[in-house]
Order: sequence, then structure tokens, then C-alpha cells
Amino acid sequence: MKSDIDRLMAARDLQAIFVTGDAESNPPRAYLTGGAQITGGLVIKKRGQPSVMVVNPMEIEEAAKSGLTVYTYNDLGWSELIEQAEGNRSKAEVALWGRCLERFDIPPGKIGLYGVGGLNHYLAFAPLLEAGNPGYQIVGEMGMTLFDEAYITKDAEEIRRIRTVAAAASAVLQATWDFIAAHRADGDTVVQDDGTPLTIGEVKRFVRRALLDRELEDTGMIFAQGRDAGFPHSRGENEMPLKVGQAIVFDLFPRQLGGGYHHDTTRTWCIGHAPDAVRQTYDTVMAAFQVAVSAYAEPGQPAHALQDAVLDYFEANGHPTPRSHPGSSEGYVHSLGHGVGLNIHERPSLHHLVKDDILQIGNMITIEPGLYYPERGFGVRIEDSFIIDETGALVSLTDFHKDLVLPLKGGAA
Amino acid sequence: MKSDIDRLMAARDLQAIFVTGDAESNPPRAYLTGGAQITGGLVIKKRGQPSVMVVNPMEIEEAAKSGLTVYTYNDLGWSELIEQAEGNRSKAEVALWGRCLERFDIPPGKIGLYGVGGLNHYLAFAPLLEAGNPGYQIVGEMGMTLFDEAYITKDAEEIRRIRTVAAAASAVLQATWDFIAAHRADGDTVVQDDGTPLTIGEVKRFVRRALLDRELEDTGMIFAQGRDAGFPHSRGENEMPLKVGQAIVFDLFPRQLGGGYHHDTTRTWCIGHAPDAVRQTYDTVMAAFQVAVSAYAEPGQPAHALQDAVLDYFEANGHPTPRSHPGSSEGYVHSLGHGVGLNIHERPSLHHLVKDDILQIGNMITIEPGLYYPERGFGVRIEDSFIIDETGALVSLTDFHKDLVLPLKGGAA
Repeated sequence: MKSDIDRLMAARDLQAIFVTGDAESNPPRAYLTGGAQITGGLVIKKRGQPSVMVVNPMEIEEAAKSGLTVYTYNDLGWSELIEQAEGNRSKAEVALWGRCLERFDIPPGKIGLYGVGGLNHYLAFAPLLEAGNPGYQIVGEMGMTLFDEAYITKDAEEIRRIRTVAAAASAVLQATWDFIAAHRADGDTVVQDDGTPLTIGEVKRFVRRALLDRELEDTGMIFAQGRDAGFPHSRGENEMPLKVGQAIVFDLFPRQLGGGYHHDTTRTWCIGHAPDAVRQTYDTVMAAFQVAVSAYAEPGQPAHALQDAVLDYFEANGHPTPRSHPGSSEGYVHSLGHGVGLNIHERPSLHHLVKDDILQIGNMITIEPGLYYPERGFGVRIEDSFIIDETGALVSLTDFHKDLVLPLKGGAA
Repeated sequence: MKSDIDRLMAARDLQAIFVTGDAESNPPRAYLTGGAQITGGLVIKKRGQPSVMVVNPMEIEEAAKSGLTVYTYNDLGWSELIEQAEGNRSKAEVALWGRCLERFDIPPGKIGLYGVGGLNHYLAFAPLLEAGNPGYQIVGEMGMTLFDEAYITKDAEEIRRIRTVAAAASAVLQATWDFIAAHRADGDTVVQDDGTPLTIGEVKRFVRRALLDRELEDTGMIFAQGRDAGFPHSRGENEMPLKVGQAIVFDLFPRQLGGGYHHDTTRTWCIGHAPDAVRQTYDTVMAAFQVAVSAYAEPGQPAHALQDAVLDYFEANGHPTPRSHPGSSEGYVHSLGHGVGLNIHERPSLHHLVKDDILQIGNMITIEPGLYYPERGFGVRIEDSFIIDETGALVSLTDFHKDLVLPLKGGAA
């Protein structure tokens, strides 16, 4: 969690962290600033000191909301630097970083560069920074990074925000269920009052509005029906009308507006009625979900233990898995789950090939078994988000039922 | 434009471009794929050849919509690579890039790395790629990059999409105006039917819904009132009730859902009536807008000529500018405009210190003069997006009036 950052910096021998990049969703920046909605600029954390922000003067009011000390480019002499660089921004930027190193009294050594932005820019910029600021090395890292490590356990303030998002996301699931249920069937097509088909595009639009009403934003929901549902990440075709008796995989992973915490949940719905094959597969996936939850015992347990239990279960029931049939596109074709937070995918990983991740108090994880048979025209996935609470219990954050059949109230199918 | 990419690659001596990164909005990926909504993966363009995609098998259906040839990680032997790397993803990724270089027959030399993603990851990854694939250099670039150069002029297909977005964004301005106008005043506060104040948060929610209804997404609109409007990038306080007789700066720069083209427009509104000081300032800004438009003569003209004309005008009228008073937070404190497209800020820049940008057929630019007096409690900005069309004419894409006073229909102020 956040209070670990100084320790994580020491372990990497970092004198400071510079967070930058102009992506709208920039988790390291959101993490250090509590979600300040600025573009560009720098968040600088010297080891042992609180973070400070260095922003375009136009962003000062927005940055101040973070509660951090804010400096503008002008405070650091930007106009002078750009003049000295004869309008060459790159040169001026190098000098600006130099001013920051001096102003914030950062000793020579390693500076960790983080954030989300244009890769080509920083790949070219890092050597210039080093050349222009002798004694400093600009370093990146792969794999389990400093932020990845910090993100793994959420502090009380984060969990408070995560619970708010979870409640809102659960309400959107209910609202979407109710929205579809209010329609009627004409033959095997779900139709609106005026007889025109209800399309996936219209459902997605409803969902996006329902999210916005609760200060959430969609980040690419999946609403995939029939054969499309058989491909775990097919997002669904907007023009396709909803059909009675087909499996729909609805995977919703919204985020707080402006780049905050996520909630990740999936339901599989059959409108009107469920074909036997879908019902049987659904029951198997629900059983696997329970297998996963039951496989959790206590903090300290390897995260892959839950996936291992589900692999055993699916294989015993005759389904190909990524362990028995690597690369198969039928059966169980993905991992059981992952950490969630400011990023939709965080550690711990529940993948069976990731051996080092353990489950701990403060984790937020998904549990999401699924079975996919695109050639048979369906797929099924069930997912809740969980936290491991302060008592060590695995607690679902997703407050919405797991019924398969969504009956139409507007008329018989 | 897109047809320039091979020439731009040759000028940089690039054998291929690799576009990667897991940001949702990834303009280089959207540009090469026509907006494919995948996360991660690679888009690879060998010089002289069409782009191809290399994606997670789960993304194959989504990637196929691009019309490009799609390969999955499995096609390139990912399982084998991850096994050889003993589960070390970074090592396997290096080998995967090696497979791509081989499979797509990319000659040794420079490989340009582009895209939007985690800076720390690629800063550490690039040297590993080079070490693992002798004969190849992984290069970035700053300043005017290959993509920046390509983006500057839009082709006919891009302009068709840009016009659709512009029409939708203009409709949202009208809908927002009508939404506010339907309210009434109670004293100097704008209130709803039930007498509760209409807040900025409620207006922003209305706008986001109106955008979604037209397949657009908000990317951080500004709706700033009173003193807040005096800071060009203050986004406005959600809790603040709308007030009669205060300047509101409404800067809307939405994007096609899922990361497509933008439209950028600003209006300044006073509900009910405008104080004299705001009206006078507004008239000055409107005149500056006309000065800018009139300063455009023909393709080939330096882009800063428009800013120069506006600087002359504002200075002659006694307002501080970034030329006369660099770093001032009063008066005209920003540049006249910028290119727009898949990115909200592209070239050409209209900044007076950027000397090399010229205006050309196929440009999409903003013209957005403003005056800011936060200590006097207001700011004013007026902005349309324009294209320079195939005849060389500067044509506004923003089809919405520029009235200052927004009268309330729900009752007298």
C-alpha cells in the first residue's frame, strides 16, 4: 500500500520517483495524487518526503485539489528555460528536470521514471535527461514494479472508495437486468414497444448512461451473445438484436470517472429460457466458482491455489484447460482471476504459471471461471470482485444475483 | 496523412514500426488499425508493406474488424516461448519480438517503437530487445514524430469521420443550451422544478449523457463559472450551483467512443444577463476570433501568423499577452490554437514561438482566443474547430451559435 512506497524505493535504490505522461488514465499519477485530473506535468516523490506536483500554470487549481504542494512550470523558470533553449522544448524539458532535481534537493543516483504516456517520447528523452543531468540515472522497470507492489494491498481509504464503486456497479447490473426484462419477445427476437429489435448497441448505451448516473465510466464492456460469447474478449456487435434462448456474456469493468478505482464483474444471461447445453455448462461454471471460493483458506496462501483447484475441477469434468490443452480456444481458456484497483489488471495473479503471488489482507481480486464453446454457439463466465478484509476473510464486493434466465416481463417468449 | 507513412519511415531510416502499449486511448494504434479496440498486442508495419496485428488469442475477433491481417501470440509460438523462458514474461516477450522480426522478414536496422503505455516498462524493455535481437536498434523520437507528421493532414476518410463527430458535438452544445434554458432562477441561483439548485455536476452529467447518445465520450470537459472561468483549465466545481449573470466557460472536447477523432469547441455563456465587464470582454474576444479567421489567407502560410494577429489586437486593446507579459495569469494567457484529430492536441501549433508550422489543405485546427481576469471574477473564451478544405478554404466545423446570454425560459431572473 501507499505507506510502503519509501521502503519499495529503498529496495530499488531510487532517490526519487518522477511520474509523468499525458494519458488521461495514468494510475501511478492517480495513486500519488489521490486522483488529480491533470494532463502532463510531473509528480515528484523524493524518498522519505511527500509527493509534490509540477504543472502547467493552467492546471494549478486542479492540481491543488490533490492536497499536495504544487509548483508551476513558471515557479521553476520555464519561460527562461525555453528562451535559453531557443524554443527547443526537449532541451527546455531536460533543463526543467534539472531544476526539479536541484529545487527538491534530490541526491545523485537513480531516478525511477513511471506513468503512462507516449513510448517513443520517453525512450528518446531518458538518455537526454541523463546527459543533461550528470550523476543521475533514469531507470525503468518491468515485471513486478514498485507501483505494482504497492497496489497489491489497498489501505482503508482505498477500500472505502472501492466499496462505493462496487455498490454503484452492482446497481448498474440490476438496472440493466430490469431494462432488458421490461421488453417483450417477437418470435425469438427481443423487441421494443414499437416492435423494433432491441440491439446490443442499445443495451450498451443504456449501461453507459446508468454508469454515468453513478459517476462511473465504461472502459470497454463486453456484451457478447451466442457464438460471440464463446470468445472471452469479443465485445459484442452493436447491430445484433438480443435473442431469446442464447447465452449472453456481460462483463462490466467500469472505473470511477476521470481515472479512479475499478469494479470487475461478469454475468451470463439467457433471455426467456436457457437451452440444456447452456444450463449444464452454466451449472459447471457456478460449481467451479464455488470451488474457487472454497479453495481460499487464509492470507499467505499462494494465489494460484485457487486456479489449481478450478483446473482440477474442469479437467475432471472433461473440459480442456490451459494446463491440459495450452493454446486451446475451447473449454476453460484463461486464468481464474487477477488483482483489481486503479488498473483493471493488477497483482496478485491467480494464473497457475505464476508461482510467487500470495493472497494477503487488503487484496482486491476477481474470481472468474468460464467455459467457451464458440463452435457450439456459446460461452459462459461468472465473475465477482472480492476483497480480503482486515479479518482475512474473502468477501465478495459484488451485490447482485447470479440467475441465468432473465425472464421478459413485457410478454411471453 | 496515412499515405505518407512509408516516406516518413524512409526519412527516419526505419525498417519497421512496432506500435504497442496498453492504454485504452492509443492514437498510433487507432491510426494504423482504423480504431481497433484491443488492449496490448502489437501493430507492426514493415516499410513498404501494410500493417499487421499480433494479438492475444482472446482479441482475435475484435482485431479482425480492422481489416488487417491478424496473427495471435499462439501463431508465433507464445506457449513455447514462455516455457523456454521458464515463465519469465519479459524474456518471452523479447523472443516474441524476435519471432515477429523473422516472420515478417524485417531487415536488420532501426525499429521505431510507438504507442501509449507504461513508460517504466518500455524504458527497461528496449535495451533487452536490442540485446536479444542483435542487428536491430529500438528507437524512439521526440518533438515532431513520424505520427505527428502524418496526423497533420487528414485524408478524405478521416475528414468524413471528423465531420460526423463535429455534427454530433454541435448537437450536444445545442442540447446543453436548451437543457439549461428550461430552468428558472430563484434570486441569482438557477433552480430546478423542485426549487433545488442546478449544479455544475448536474450539467456535466447531462452533457456526458448527451454525448453518449451520439456515440461520443467526454475526455474532461471544462464547465467553469465566475472566478473559476478565469483559469483557462479549471474544470469547474461539481457542487457549485449555476448563477445568473456570471461568465461560464464551457470547453467541450469529446472523442468518438473507444478512442477516435475529437472535436474541440468552447462557448462562454452568461445566464439571464451579462454584466458590462463580461460583455465588453466578450466583444473583444469575438473581435479577436474574427481577426484570427481573417488573418488566414491560403495554404502555405505560417500557422503563427494567426496568433501574431491576435497578439497585436489584444495588445493594442491593452490586454497582457504571453508575448508582452510572459507568464502572466491575466489577459490572454495561452496560444490561439492547435491541430486536432485522434489526439486533442496535434500539429500544426499556432503558438507565436513555433515558427516552422505552416497551414495546409487537410489540417484540422482550433481557433480559440480568450481573456482571463480571475481577480475580477471572470474569463471568456470562444473556440471553433476548423478544417482547411480541398479548395484551401478555412471552414468551421462547429455548427452552433456564439450568443453570450442564455435566457431562462422557466422564469424570469
